[in-house]
Amino acid sequence: MKVQALERVGDRLRLIDQTRLPGELVLKNIDNYKDVIRAIKRLEVRGAPAIGIAAAYVLAMAASNAERYDLAYLRIVGEELKGARPTAVNLSWAVDRMLTRAADLSGVSVEEAQTTLWVEAEAIHEEDRRMCMQIGQLGSGLINDSDTVLTHCNTGALATGGIGTALGVIYTCRNLGKRIRVFVDETRPLLQGARLTAWELLQEGIDTTLICDSTAGFLMKQGKIDHVIVGADRIARNGDTANKIGTYSLAVLAKEHNVPFYVAAPSSTFDDEIESGDRIVIEERVAGEVTSGFGKRTAPEGIAVYSPAFDVTPVRLISFFITNGEIKPGGRPPDLR
Amino acid sequence: MKVQALERVGDRLRLIDQTRLPGELVLKNIDNYKDVIRAIKRLEVRGAPAIGIAAAYVLAMAASNAERYDLAYLRIVGEELKGARPTAVNLSWAVDRMLTRAADLSGVSVEEAQTTLWVEAEAIHEEDRRMCMQIGQLGSGLINDSDTVLTHCNTGALATGGIGTALGVIYTCRNLGKRIRVFVDETRPLLQGARLTAWELLQEGIDTTLICDSTAGFLMKQGKIDHVIVGADRIARNGDTANKIGTYSLAVLAKEHNVPFYVAAPSSTFDDEIESGDRIVIEERVAGEVTSGFGKRTAPEGIAVYSPAFDVTPVRLISFFITNGEIKPGGRPPDLR
Repeated sequence: MKVQALERVGDRLRLIDQTRLPGELVLKNIDNYKDVIRAIKRLEVRGAPAIGIAAAYVLAMAASNAERYDLAYLRIVGEELKGARPTAVNLSWAVDRMLTRAADLSGVSVEEAQTTLWVEAEAIHEEDRRMCMQIGQLGSGLINDSDTVLTHCNTGALATGGIGTALGVIYTCRNLGKRIRVFVDETRPLLQGARLTAWELLQEGIDTTLICDSTAGFLMKQGKIDHVIVGADRIARNGDTANKIGTYSLAVLAKEHNVPFYVAAPSSTFDDEIESGDRIVIEERVAGEVTSGFGKRTAPEGIAVYSPAFDVTPVRLISFFITNGEIKPGGRPPDLR
Repeated sequence: MKVQALERVGDRLRLIDQTRLPGELVLKNIDNYKDVIRAIKRLEVRGAPAIGIAAAYVLAMAASNAERYDLAYLRIVGEELKGARPTAVNLSWAVDRMLTRAADLSGVSVEEAQTTLWVEAEAIHEEDRRMCMQIGQLGSGLINDSDTVLTHCNTGALATGGIGTALGVIYTCRNLGKRIRVFVDETRPLLQGARLTAWELLQEGIDTTLICDSTAGFLMKQGKIDHVIVGADRIARNGDTANKIGTYSLAVLAKEHNVPFYVAAPSSTFDDEIESGDRIVIEERVAGEVTSGFGKRTAPEGIAVYSPAFDVTPVRLISFFITNGEIKPGGRPPDLR
C-alpha cells in the first residue's frame, strides 16, 4: 500500500491530515499528545481502527511528554480520548488496553515505562495491520472475478493501521488477480467516500465509480451490485452494528434486492459489554457540516438540522461478518428478502 | 404564498433564479425565449410542473419575438424544449398542447396568434395553480394533526405554478390548523431539499428539519416518520413513477417500516403513452455536480461518476397517488411490509 494513515517516527506521530484530501496530501509530524487528540476530534485521523491506534500512541506520547510517570494523569487523558469519538469502540478498547499496561509499571523507571507504552502502542498498530490482512484474505473468498462491490464511507488504509477492512477485502481480491469493480457512496455529510475512498482506490488503480448516497438503491434495482461491504464502529454482542450514517439504509436495500451484505471489522470492534444495538451511543454532528459543509452555505439561515454520525444496522440484515480469524454468519438468511 | 417561481409580466417572464437560492433571492425578467430555454437547462427554473409552464411561455414568447407567425419554427423550438429535460413529462405535455393550439391559428393575424398563445400559456399556468390547490385539499385528508412528514427534493411553490404538490399538501394542512413537522432530505447532488424546500418551508413558518439523504432510513427505524410524500416527473400507465434520484430508496425504506408512501402530482404528470417505468428515459447529470458541487472540489481528479437525475419507483411500493380530482390507490397493500 502506498497510503499509510499514521506512523510512529521516534517519539512523534506522523499522520495524513485527512481533512485536506483529496486536494492535498499533507503529512503532519506531531510531538505533543494534545495535538493528536485535537487531530482525532477534527477528524484529521478517523476510522474506527485508526483512531484506536492513534489513541494508543496518544497515551505513549503523554507519558513521554511528562517529566514523571503519573498513572492518574494517563487515566484522565484516557477519559478525554474516550469522549472525543464515543461511538467507535476501538478507541476505548485501545485506551483500556494501554491503561492496563500502564498500571503494571509502578515499579519501573520513567524511561522504561515510557518505552513500554510506545512498544504497546506499536503492538496495537501491528496487530491491526495483521488483522486487516486476515480480513482481506477471508473476505476475498466471498468475491468472484468480475464482481461489482458497493461500499460506504472509508474503510481502507486511511481508516486502519493496514490495508483496511472492507477495502482490505477489495485490495486482496485485486492482489489475487480478481477484477473487481467498486461503486463508492460519497457518504454525506463529510464525504469520506468521495474524498478518501475514491482517492485511495484511484491510487491503487481499482476500477471505481463515485455515486451519491441516494443512488445506491437504484443501482441495486438495476442488478448492478453483487455485494455490499461496509466497516463498523461498534458491534454489539448480538451482532447489531453501528457504522457511518446510511449503512442501515444500504442494509435494508440490500435485503430488498437479495444482495449479500457484509460487515468487515477486526475483533477490536466487537463490544461484548453491550447486549444489543439499542444501547450504542450515537454521536451527533454539528449542523454546519450539512448546511455549509464545503465552504459555501447551501441551506437557509436558521434551519434546524438532525445529523447523527452513525446508525445501527440490526443483525437480521447482515449476511456475514468478515473478521480476523473467521467469517461469522449474521442474522440474515441467505436468499431471503 | 409569498413565493412564486414564475409569472407573466406583459410579454416577458419573471422568474426566480433558483440556482442562487437560498443565499440570494434574484428575480429575472426575461424577454427573449432563448434565455428562458437557457434558464430551464441551467435549472434556474425547475420542477416538473414549473418547467411545463415555462415551456408554454417559451412558445408564446417565441411567437411574439418573431416578425411573422411560423408554425414550423415553433415546432423546432418545441423539439428543443423537449430535449432540454427529457424525464419530466409535463414539459412535452405543455409543448404538445401549445403546438396543437398553434396549429389552429393559420388563418388569423400575427397579433391574434401571439395573443392566443400567451392566453393558452396563462391557462396552463392557472390550471396548474388550481390542480395544486386540489392536490393540497385531497392530500391533507391523509395527514393528522401533529404528524411528521418526510419529503424529498422540492415540490413546492418553486416547482409549480401554485402552492406545490407534496409541499402543497403540507401547506394545506397548516392552513387547516394541523401542526405538521417536516423532515427534508437535502437531495444530493443539487441539494434542492436544502436550498429550496428548507427555504420555502421556513418562509412559510413550517417546523422543518434538514437531514442528509442517508439519514431517512434511520429516522423511519426510530418511528419518527408518519408519512413520506414526494412529487413526480413522469408516471407511467401502470403507476411506475419517475422522480428525483433517491425516491426509490425512500419507497423501499417506507415499505420496510410500514410508513405510507404517497406520490403527489397533477394530471399533467401522468403519461399514458408509456406502459411501465422500464420505458422512462432517465436524464444523466454531469460529474461536476457530484465531484465539486459545493464550489470546492471534493473528489479526486479522474474519478468516474454515475449520476442519474431520477430513478423509477415501481407502483407496488406506492400507497396512494394524490392527484387533482382524486386519491388513487397505488400497488402497495396497506400494513404490509
